[in-house]
Amino acid sequence: MSINSFGHLFRVTTWGESHGPALGATVDGCPPGVEIDEAFIQQWMDKRKPGQNKYTTQRREADEVRILSGVFEGKTTGTPIQLMIENTDQRSKDYGDIAEKFRPGHADITYWQKYGIRDYRGGGRSSARETAARVAAGGLARAALAKLVPGIEIKGYMTRMGAHEIDRDAFDWGQIDQNPFWVPDAKAAQTWAEYLDGLRKSGSSVGAVIEIVARNVPAGLGAPIYGKLDTDLAAAMMSINAVKGVEIGEGMSAAMLTGELNADEIAMGPDGPEYSSNHAGGILGGISTGQDVVVRFAVKPTSSILQTRKTITKSGQEAEIITKGRHDPCVGIRAVPVGEAMMACVILDHLLLDRGQTGGVRGPIG
Amino acid sequence: MSINSFGHLFRVTTWGESHGPALGATVDGCPPGVEIDEAFIQQWMDKRKPGQNKYTTQRREADEVRILSGVFEGKTTGTPIQLMIENTDQRSKDYGDIAEKFRPGHADITYWQKYGIRDYRGGGRSSARETAARVAAGGLARAALAKLVPGIEIKGYMTRMGAHEIDRDAFDWGQIDQNPFWVPDAKAAQTWAEYLDGLRKSGSSVGAVIEIVARNVPAGLGAPIYGKLDTDLAAAMMSINAVKGVEIGEGMSAAMLTGELNADEIAMGPDGPEYSSNHAGGILGGISTGQDVVVRFAVKPTSSILQTRKTITKSGQEAEIITKGRHDPCVGIRAVPVGEAMMACVILDHLLLDRGQTGGVRGPIG
Amino acid sequence: MSINSFGHLFRVTTWGESHGPALGATVDGCPPGVEIDEAFIQQWMDKRKPGQNKYTTQRREADEVRILSGVFEGKTTGTPIQLMIENTDQRSKDYGDIAEKFRPGHADITYWQKYGIRDYRGGGRSSARETAARVAAGGLARAALAKLVPGIEIKGYMTRMGAHEIDRDAFDWGQIDQNPFWVPDAKAAQTWAEYLDGLRKSGSSVGAVIEIVARNVPAGLGAPIYGKLDTDLAAAMMSINAVKGVEIGEGMSAAMLTGELNADEIAMGPDGPEYSSNHAGGILGGISTGQDVVVRFAVKPTSSILQTRKTITKSGQEAEIITKGRHDPCVGIRAVPVGEAMMACVILDHLLLDRGQTGGVRGPIG
Amino acid sequence: MSINSFGHLFRVTTWGESHGPALGATVDGCPPGVEIDEAFIQQWMDKRKPGQNKYTTQRREADEVRILSGVFEGKTTGTPIQLMIENTDQRSKDYGDIAEKFRPGHADITYWQKYGIRDYRGGGRSSARETAARVAAGGLARAALAKLVPGIEIKGYMTRMGAHEIDRDAFDWGQIDQNPFWVPDAKAAQTWAEYLDGLRKSGSSVGAVIEIVARNVPAGLGAPIYGKLDTDLAAAMMSINAVKGVEIGEGMSAAMLTGELNADEIAMGPDGPEYSSNHAGGILGGISTGQDVVVRFAVKPTSSILQTRKTITKSGQEAEIITKGRHDPCVGIRAVPVGEAMMACVILDHLLLDRGQTGGVRGPIG
Repeated sequence: MSINSFGHLFRVTTWGESHGPALGATVDGCPPGVEIDEAFIQQWMDKRKPGQNKYTTQRREADEVRILSGVFEGKTTGTPIQLMIENTDQRSKDYGDIAEKFRPGHADITYWQKYGIRDYRGGGRSSARETAARVAAGGLARAALAKLVPGIEIKGYMTRMGAHEIDRDAFDWGQIDQNPFWVPDAKAAQTWAEYLDGLRKSGSSVGAVIEIVARNVPAGLGAPIYGKLDTDLAAAMMSINAVKGVEIGEGMSAAMLTGELNADEIAMGPDGPEYSSNHAGGILGGISTGQDVVVRFAVKPTSSILQTRKTITKSGQEAEIITKGRHDPCVGIRAVPVGEAMMACVILDHLLLDRGQTGGVRGPIG
Repeated sequence: MSINSFGHLFRVTTWGESHGPALGATVDGCPPGVEIDEAFIQQWMDKRKPGQNKYTTQRREADEVRILSGVFEGKTTGTPIQLMIENTDQRSKDYGDIAEKFRPGHADITYWQKYGIRDYRGGGRSSARETAARVAAGGLARAALAKLVPGIEIKGYMTRMGAHEIDRDAFDWGQIDQNPFWVPDAKAAQTWAEYLDGLRKSGSSVGAVIEIVARNVPAGLGAPIYGKLDTDLAAAMMSINAVKGVEIGEGMSAAMLTGELNADEIAMGPDGPEYSSNHAGGILGGISTGQDVVVRFAVKPTSSILQTRKTITKSGQEAEIITKGRHDPCVGIRAVPVGEAMMACVILDHLLLDRGQTGGVRGPIG
Repeated sequence: MSINSFGHLFRVTTWGESHGPALGATVDGCPPGVEIDEAFIQQWMDKRKPGQNKYTTQRREADEVRILSGVFEGKTTGTPIQLMIENTDQRSKDYGDIAEKFRPGHADITYWQKYGIRDYRGGGRSSARETAARVAAGGLARAALAKLVPGIEIKGYMTRMGAHEIDRDAFDWGQIDQNPFWVPDAKAAQTWAEYLDGLRKSGSSVGAVIEIVARNVPAGLGAPIYGKLDTDLAAAMMSINAVKGVEIGEGMSAAMLTGELNADEIAMGPDGPEYSSNHAGGILGGISTGQDVVVRFAVKPTSSILQTRKTITKSGQEAEIITKGRHDPCVGIRAVPVGEAMMACVILDHLLLDRGQTGGVRGPIG
Repeated sequence: MSINSFGHLFRVTTWGESHGPALGATVDGCPPGVEIDEAFIQQWMDKRKPGQNKYTTQRREADEVRILSGVFEGKTTGTPIQLMIENTDQRSKDYGDIAEKFRPGHADITYWQKYGIRDYRGGGRSSARETAARVAAGGLARAALAKLVPGIEIKGYMTRMGAHEIDRDAFDWGQIDQNPFWVPDAKAAQTWAEYLDGLRKSGSSVGAVIEIVARNVPAGLGAPIYGKLDTDLAAAMMSINAVKGVEIGEGMSAAMLTGELNADEIAMGPDGPEYSSNHAGGILGGISTGQDVVVRFAVKPTSSILQTRKTITKSGQEAEIITKGRHDPCVGIRAVPVGEAMMACVILDHLLLDRGQTGGVRGPIG
């Protein structure tokens, strides 16, 4: 059991602090023979990279991944893959004030209470910078999935920023990559830009909801009872910094439905079962149905804001704090590639687990 | 790695099917010296037991727990504890129809697709009957917690049934045990009773939201990054049958808040830090703060309903199905003790993990 | 992580004490569709069962296994399998003396020191009775292996009892099942019978070496670096009560060889690589070669003897002890089926793990 | 479950190949507040470092460890610690021949059979170079142990090289660090030097036995049944390259003893129980007794020798091979610090596990 690890057979251990020399992911259990190079992973890193526009932290990091092991002549060998990202823009002088004061809404106080020591520079291990390592591992998982499940697609986007929700009727996949918010709606993108700009200038921040969809996931993935596909996805998403809620398919709204509205009816299509709807989010009894796997999660607003907040110091004195570092007014934006990475890792993991456990047995239908 | 297990140091493996001879929980890692007997566990079993009123399945099960190992002269010995519950009212003739047809919204089809074989009697392993084993393990966890954390309290209740939500202003702890819905509001209890009675008579079902609160949890529990307290709680709750969403503290609504509204301010109280609010749900950076730990989850409506639904058979024929067995019109009711049990197990597990990992080190404040 | 469990994907958790109501194995991860019934498992149980001749403990146990879950219509379903064995001949009055005194060479003192409580009746959890659960799980593993690796054979035998070693030149597979010692040599069987009879009558006991061979194991099993096939076999065998040493292939004697004598040369046979010898014991770099997998382990003499030994009491008083219970003069005899069971479990586990991790990829030779 | 990892709570994942850019250990679960720096770890690295005398491989590696995470202001923070060692002397031209031919006694053929791809340069992942990462992790474990168990000592030495065994009567702790073989006997050191020199010149190699002793280990460590202290030590040592046998205390010789000779009698000393002998090797029922923990393991002779051996090529052709790289005539020499490192990691791991599981409960004696 390794606490900084996740996954059963595709196992990712992340390491590193916000202001240390480097951080990375030690990935064990990647299948052999997967074509991979640093450039392939880099494209996903670049999606998460800070400082790309005024809506994300102005910290400048190249976020360049180096593969230090487990790949030979362009292919994975089945041995552990070390993905290292050196920190280049650490500028730790920004963080002097928080050595003594605990930022409200941050892990500062709980790390101190748990460990009796904390690397306060930029939040140390609790910084969202840790998610760079997840994205690197996710890039690797995508490469393996591409080999093992041709046609699989994993895509994330924002569905809410603060008070603003997308219009599902205007949903446009083509828009997602066209705006800094990964929002599938050109009009929303414009509204959100103005909204966030205002928040940013006032030194405030706001929360968001992100939805991740995986298409063409084979039926049969998921390990009941405590390694259900939805269980592992819930854990994966909840482990991302600032996440406070996770939903599968209909999510919390399922509580408002009756049985006849909620249960997706089944018909027989040319390639197997077809469903009348997808309230289930592609998962029944913890096992994938072959429909789109749909996960949603809520990210709370960044707690590091330019407004004065009450707190205490290590010595127990009451104090006020303004967090002056370079922060994200809506950290949810950069959570989109992180959520995608976690989805990729979880699905690959269950693919390996399923072929181990069942040998890919499938009960025939029809 | 064991798929029917959860927990790091307090590790619970459940086993058994709805209509097999017995089911149970193999609990490994319970600390030695905990006073326990069958009667103590039974009180929690009785809370979940079916057939207690007209709002839950009419299956009659005594749900009597037997302790087969790990307890000597009334105390745990540190060795594995086998908690077995024999099935008495199996009446499997009710389930003949579902041997061939897949019930919409059920795991019937995915178990078949994954394993190529399924125990269709009452849903087999995917039946909510499995949660009896969790409640037994939760009873044991409560006994251990009572010894290790005097004053700890774990309590669940319903906050929503279908369209009906509780009035937070009328919240009354004293009411929770006074009605069949564990709803903390006498007036709501009455309204819900009428509402559910109507649904039951029409052969329908409805979803629910359950909230579980743990009080007097010490600060410092939780294992960043992938064994965060909230990560493990999300997994624990999502693993419960029919759960589609999990929230910590503010939950999905955190997406709608600004940074200054969301982050709980900190002051210095006589016994340590005090917080102005609890949007965090008692967890920061995955580690408990000492505030109430608050988890909420949504349970979808039972898919086994007395209304005709379209589906297919194993041989791929389209068909209609009415599920005639004895089912819960609102399975969320019986999810309350299950959620409590999962909370108890997760907190105990993290208590053990924390003392292993840090030795219970705490950074002093003040 | 579960301390009373072993295996990665085929995961066995044993539970139960020597003198409790029952003991058993909770087996998670058995592939679906394996034909199994209680009679199949019983045949291996009977091999280990006490009281079959004068050379093993006179405790009478039917050791009847009941399958309580995970099997439907004669086949495994992929869900956890509970194998329960009720204790029938507990006769705990025999053990009164050891409640206060620690038996030298036994776990009495260490369980007390670790847990502050112990079930002293028959050694409680530390009794060799726990191995009955392993044998049950091993029977299940054999059934799964028979389906997945036709032709696989797992066989154990004794190669040493005290001062007496087998004559390798007289090795006769056919003799193994013909004598109470599982010794592959009719002449040795006779000599050993006289030798052990003498020891038994004098109230003494003696150690033994057991060798387990697995034939027709496919090449490619084993998970470097820390789940090597030999690593997991070493752990599996060392976990058996009273085992003090484990060897693979040449074992400890490899230290005496030179490189040219030790390394098995490779030639090309009609069905693939062939080796000139098997010093490696069928494992190179932790991965099976396709040769026979050969493991040997030493079992110390039973410490419960009828001779007076010096010890102390719980209250720290020096004392003498004679252990009068019903014990095995050579516990190594009954360790043979236990070693076979562990071999079966480990090989099945690695088979599942390998197909999960590599998909059964094999580099072609020739 | 991570295959390149070991440990329950102190969890070490090693990564890296012989001829890649770097290798290392990702260590998760080190307790917070342990004083550590690179120099402390380096002293153990230097013990294992190649090229120090003519008896070990002439590969020149600085083996400099860099701590990339988890340490702040000279102390561990409780977060993962990345220990990286860059490879400097890779000289891969030496290894051209083995790209096509499988070296007898090596993992070349099995890695190929398992993964269908292998990094043949210097053996890739199967190279003994991987043990550098273990020694780094072991250095960290020693630092943590020094804080948690004052007085603990872990020391390894050779007891056999080929035909030569040490004279137990001449055992001298002071000699161990005085010769290149870590042999506790000055006279043996001289004999062995001549012996090995001859073997080296003839291009041969030889096996060895190493013994590791841990003193002042507290009673109560070890997790029955499948995480026994001896079980985990057996796995740890067997996972080291070239190890073919592992013994605890009396080891394989226990098979030759009678019960009255083997079981260590117990008396009451001023500080607790005292034992008349230590056949048990400090472990009863898988739990430490407080006596010296004694483990022994046999290392086979290096298979890379300068003598012609028969083998086959990837394309199935029979061939001859002489391995010309820079190798160890007795790889057992460098296994001494590796065995010490594994002992340190396993004991620390069980210390953490025990305090998690039992809270350090101890049954009082006297």
